[in-house]
Parts: sequence; C-alpha cells; structure tokens
Amino acid sequence: MGRIICAGLGPGDPDLISVRADRALRSARQIAYFRKKGRQGQARRIVEGLLPAGVAEHPMEYPVTTEIPFDSPAYNALLAAFYDGWAARLVTLAQAGDVVIPCEGDPFFYGSFMHLYVRLRGKVEIEVIPGITGMTGCWNATGEPFTWGDDVLTVLMGTLPEDELAEHMARADALVIMKTGRNLPRVKRALAQAGRLEAAWLVERGTMPGERIARLSEVDDADCPYFAIVLVHGQGRRPAAEEAA
Amino acid sequence: MGRIICAGLGPGDPDLISVRADRALRSARQIAYFRKKGRQGQARRIVEGLLPAGVAEHPMEYPVTTEIPFDSPAYNALLAAFYDGWAARLVTLAQAGDVVIPCEGDPFFYGSFMHLYVRLRGKVEIEVIPGITGMTGCWNATGEPFTWGDDVLTVLMGTLPEDELAEHMARADALVIMKTGRNLPRVKRALAQAGRLEAAWLVERGTMPGERIARLSEVDDADCPYFAIVLVHGQGRRPAAEEAA
Repeated sequence: MGRIICAGLGPGDPDLISVRADRALRSARQIAYFRKKGRQGQARRIVEGLLPAGVAEHPMEYPVTTEIPFDSPAYNALLAAFYDGWAARLVTLAQAGDVVIPCEGDPFFYGSFMHLYVRLRGKVEIEVIPGITGMTGCWNATGEPFTWGDDVLTVLMGTLPEDELAEHMARADALVIMKTGRNLPRVKRALAQAGRLEAAWLVERGTMPGERIARLSEVDDADCPYFAIVLVHGQGRRPAAEEAA
Repeated sequence: MGRIICAGLGPGDPDLISVRADRALRSARQIAYFRKKGRQGQARRIVEGLLPAGVAEHPMEYPVTTEIPFDSPAYNALLAAFYDGWAARLVTLAQAGDVVIPCEGDPFFYGSFMHLYVRLRGKVEIEVIPGITGMTGCWNATGEPFTWGDDVLTVLMGTLPEDELAEHMARADALVIMKTGRNLPRVKRALAQAGRLEAAWLVERGTMPGERIARLSEVDDADCPYFAIVLVHGQGRRPAAEEAA
C-alpha cells in the first residue's frame, strides 16, 4: 500500500519548492492535482519540467454548474460529493504505490487538499510537505520587508463583507488580502474606509512569469487580475535611524 | 563585486529549505549569520551538513549588555550601531565574491536580516530567497489544517500588552502568537480572557529534533519553551459533513 503525499509547491517559481517536495515530485509514479475543467491548472503548470517521463496523471476537476450559485448549500453538496469521490479513488490508486498531489502554496493554509485530508486520514498513510505560502512569495516580490518588531498581521479573504473587512483593516499593522479577483472593488472601498488604500500594493502572479506589482489605488476597477494578493506592509518598531532609511 | 544573498531557511528541517536556497548554501564560499554570543545559533545549526568544505564563516553576534533594558533607546542605539557595522563589513566582504546569509524562516517576516537589508540596498546587489515561515512549519507539525474558507488569521507578538492581545484574539478566527518564551504566562491570560485558551496549541521546535506539541492549557507557567509558537486553528466554512469529520 502506497502513501498519499501532498507536496506544497510554494508561490509559483519551481525554484522555491522545498528540497523534500522537489524530490517527491521528481520520483513520482502517479500524480493527482486540482484544476478547473478545460484548464491546465496552476499546480500542474508549476511542476512542468520536474515530473519524470511516464508518470500517470489524474486531474481532479472541480464540479462546474451554471445553475447553482457558488455559495449555496446545493453547490456545497456538489463539492462534498466531489471530494468524497476523489478520496475514495485516491485510496484505490494508492494500492499501486505512492500518489503525489502537488498543491500551490502551503497545503494547510486555505488549501483544497484539506478537504481530501480530512476524508483520507485513518484510511491511508498521508504525508503533507509544507510550502512557502503565496503571500510570502508576494511580499518578497515587492522587495520591501513586510513585518517588523511588534507588528500585528491580519490575513483577510476578499469575500468578506465590506464593513467587516474595513474593521479588521483599521486594527492591524500589516495586511494580506487574498481571494481578490472580482472582489477587488470591495477590497479597495474597505481599504479606503480604513484609511489604508494609499499604502496598499497589488501583487499579481507573484514569483511567476508575468509578475506585476502595482499600487492598488492606481489599478482600474475593471482590471480583474489573476492570482493576485493585496498587501499593506507593516511599519513597526526598528532600531534608530532606520525608519528614514 | 559579489552579491549579498539572504537564504531563507524555513522552519528548521533542512529538507524544507527551497531548492534555490539549498543551491546557494551548497556553493557558498563565504557565509555570515546572526547568533547570540557563545551560542552556535539556530541558522548555523540548520545549515550544518550543507556547507562546502573551506567556507569562510562570519558569525554576527548580537551586542550583549547586562546594564541596559532591551526595550530602551540606549539598547536600540547599540543595535543600530551593530547593524551599521555589519552592513559596512558585508560590503567589504562582497568585494571578494558572494556572501550567503542563512536566516531562519522567511527573511522579510519579522527577520533580523531586514535591518541589514535597509542599510545595504543601493550599495551592493542583494538577492533575498523566500523561506517557509516558522508558523507554517508549526501548523503543519500539528497535523491539522490551519485556515479554511473565509477564516481571518491574525499574527501577534507575545510582547504586546495583555489587553491588546486579548482584543485581537477575540476578533480573529485563526491565531498565531510568536515571541512567546517568557511572555507565555501573559499570552495564556490573554487567550483565557478572549475565550480561546482551550483551543490553543504550543508547538516547540516545530519540524526540528525535539519537536513538542502540547495543549497550551496543560503547559506549566514555569515551563519556558524555546523556539515556540502558539496556534489556534481556524474552523471556517467547508463542504457539508466535513465539520464532523
């Protein structure tokens, strides 16, 4: 019986994968990865060039529907069935040997793999290899240190209501906002409400080809960036004379 | 003229260093690293076994004093002079070729290297290689997914006042508290005040030899753990039937 090995891929640059995950990928006989129907998928794109010849590939395609809203109980049930089905299938595949599941960022940080993990544990041996989170890749891409001294960092999803976002944004020093995309106009309004918009950066495709770094206040509302994270750097305590540096 | 290459080491397990940082370390001719006087230092310990023979080593020892409190302007001035001195020395060393600076975690996330970075930029070419943050290593060590769905994550330093800690702790879903050590009793009281103590975990030496994971409420106040992070996992939205899993 093989294991399920979830390999955290980090922010996108294959050179930022951990030594352990790189080794698992280069020796994989079977891989499975999430993607949207008809797309190559971000995880699969990152590992292109690392996989050995002849590896068996199992794309796990999220269920699509044009009739059910994504936040409805009906879509939730559809997703649960999708994860149930793949968990069962992965147990079967593991009978032939290890299955490596490459996942963007860190698997336990807002990752889809977690939904498989809670279904698989107890049924098969699982190894989870941590990865550099997407936000870490993005704040490094700005070339500015992100958190200093006693800074409070809050990570928010752009899917939250505007007032809730603004309240958190006003209380923290450093900010990360993920799941932006179509939520970007709301995120901008919330940042403006909290007086933080002028300090905010948009990092799109951080550490990847086509990386773009822009002041969020200068990004058009019609602009709908892919794989984008919004950042506000902390300005915490540091040794004398450095603040002016 | 060589470069200054800051290599993020990740949480402690050398196998979790990125492929790029691993390569930089294995080909290093000169390294410099922070440590306390008389100690080997955590960064140096992690890279033991990776460094080539004959590498020139430059330990950067934090200034010590028994007379000045750590949070005083006088100690701050001492630290600033320490960073000034090492920044100048590193520029000199770089004239002979690249200098690799191994740093725990991610260099731009509450890292000491940031104080050198702001002094060095413009004077020498600098490459910063991201790393897996210590907190990421620690939440993976618990074996429980950390943040789900719309969870709000807040990262706090144990050095903050108790009421401020408690206020943040009550508002976020997932929590990370760093710089614990002697602040642990205050962190515990703040978590209790926020009603989160029973859900909190202490992870000591996460991903390293001697790793310990304990319920924080069961850790004695006299216990003064090293390299310890406190975690409260998020419990956010997830597909049906999973919450009970």
